Amino acid sequence: MNYGLWIQYDGTRYEGWQRQCRTDQTIQGKIEAVLSKMFGEPIEIHGAGRTDAGVHAVGQVANFHTQRRESCEWIRQELNRYLPNDIGILEVRQMQERFHSRLSAKEKVYRYRIGRQKEKNVFSYKWLYGMYEPLDLEAMRDAARLLCGTHDYRSFCANKRMKKSTVRTISDITVEEAEGELWLTFTGNGFLHHMVRILTGTLLEVGEGKKMPRSMREILEKRERAFAGRTAPAQGLTLLEVRYGDTETGNQ
Amino acid sequence: MNYGLWIQYDGTRYEGWQRQCRTDQTIQGKIEAVLSKMFGEPIEIHGAGRTDAGVHAVGQVANFHTQRRESCEWIRQELNRYLPNDIGILEVRQMQERFHSRLSAKEKVYRYRIGRQKEKNVFSYKWLYGMYEPLDLEAMRDAARLLCGTHDYRSFCANKRMKKSTVRTISDITVEEAEGELWLTFTGNGFLHHMVRILTGTLLEVGEGKKMPRSMREILEKRERAFAGRTAPAQGLTLLEVRYGDTETGNQ
Repeated sequence: MNYGLWIQYDGTRYEGWQRQCRTDQTIQGKIEAVLSKMFGEPIEIHGAGRTDAGVHAVGQVANFHTQRRESCEWIRQELNRYLPNDIGILEVRQMQERFHSRLSAKEKVYRYRIGRQKEKNVFSYKWLYGMYEPLDLEAMRDAARLLCGTHDYRSFCANKRMKKSTVRTISDITVEEAEGELWLTFTGNGFLHHMVRILTGTLLEVGEGKKMPRSMREILEKRERAFAGRTAPAQGLTLLEVRYGDTETGNQ
Repeated sequence: MNYGLWIQYDGTRYEGWQRQCRTDQTIQGKIEAVLSKMFGEPIEIHGAGRTDAGVHAVGQVANFHTQRRESCEWIRQELNRYLPNDIGILEVRQMQERFHSRLSAKEKVYRYRIGRQKEKNVFSYKWLYGMYEPLDLEAMRDAARLLCGTHDYRSFCANKRMKKSTVRTISDITVEEAEGELWLTFTGNGFLHHMVRILTGTLLEVGEGKKMPRSMREILEKRERAFAGRTAPAQGLTLLEVRYGDTETGNQ
């Protein structure tokens, strides 16, 4: 059996998605610990996006294999009962054997939320990065357009020794004001280590007038981290959605 | 000088509004501690609503007197800097000397939020009470209408030895579905100890079919706590707004 999990979490208290050891404070580790008890065997889950420490998710996807057949509703309810309140399982589906949450993913959507209202917001501060300086949104939109497409994004990758291809396709970046916040929403077929946060930091420097929109072309061409902007803090970032082809997510 | 404070808080971590001792975990205590350091003298604040442990606020109001004249913006910024992230000061205004946040209040608005979607919501669970059984909303609305008006609400008061008048006026109770939640919103000139939570618990029992809407009249007449419904948990309750006459809140 191959089960798919649709997962939400408030990443504030966690060291990120990826398990480091069996008893750690990671999302993967917490879910695996509960599943392993439920199934009476060690269960390993594969996540679609390996979110950093402090990053949140409303639509993370993971999958795991087991010999035991259980009802999806039972798995969902038991997981929600034993997981902490800040990790929630929205849905459990039985997937085709070849489905892999990360390798089968066609696109991922991330949103970076920037608080623009100086009033302290006691209800959402954990999920926002507050920034109150004036920002030139039109310049940010011009720069965002130049960052879309299929490019080598090595300049936007925190891992300097990355040996695999750093070519990715970003199909869309939107810059919009909503609910007293600024939302940068990135849609692409994959993102490198810290890539969304470095794209965000670079776009913010454009908004502040420290970088020109047209310099995005040069940054991409340089293929060196030092030319891009700062890394925006983790807490503003949320994994919104992982998209699959229709055949991959259909029930068996 | 008499300063008015408009305050938000996530009450989850606190023992309620009202200070118990100088170093306690109450909203009043936290704000007084910061103000006393800022002004170099002991400052006592008066809150409009003495919210219970675990109750939240988006529009609590308090006021305090001092000899020192300071800019409202300085007070707001310093308070926000030194208060924890889950207590925020929205606004500071210089008030007329006779203004008292509680005694001058004309009306208060409380909202009780009931989560109706079985999916665990990792982002708002702290501010909701989850209840997934079917509820007869029309019966709840009928009962709510009978609970409005000027009545002796002793049956809805947790304090059995209450010596002062338990007559209050509730001008409105609405029962509405919004954002996958059920909202019970209470507007009145004052609320007794636990009154909103007992009104909520009673309306929920009507929704569950355990009480008839028409029994509200009898519960009011009995003037005894035992006849009303259960006390709904604190975490679902938020103080939305305190309303004053135009003259009370005008700047001096």
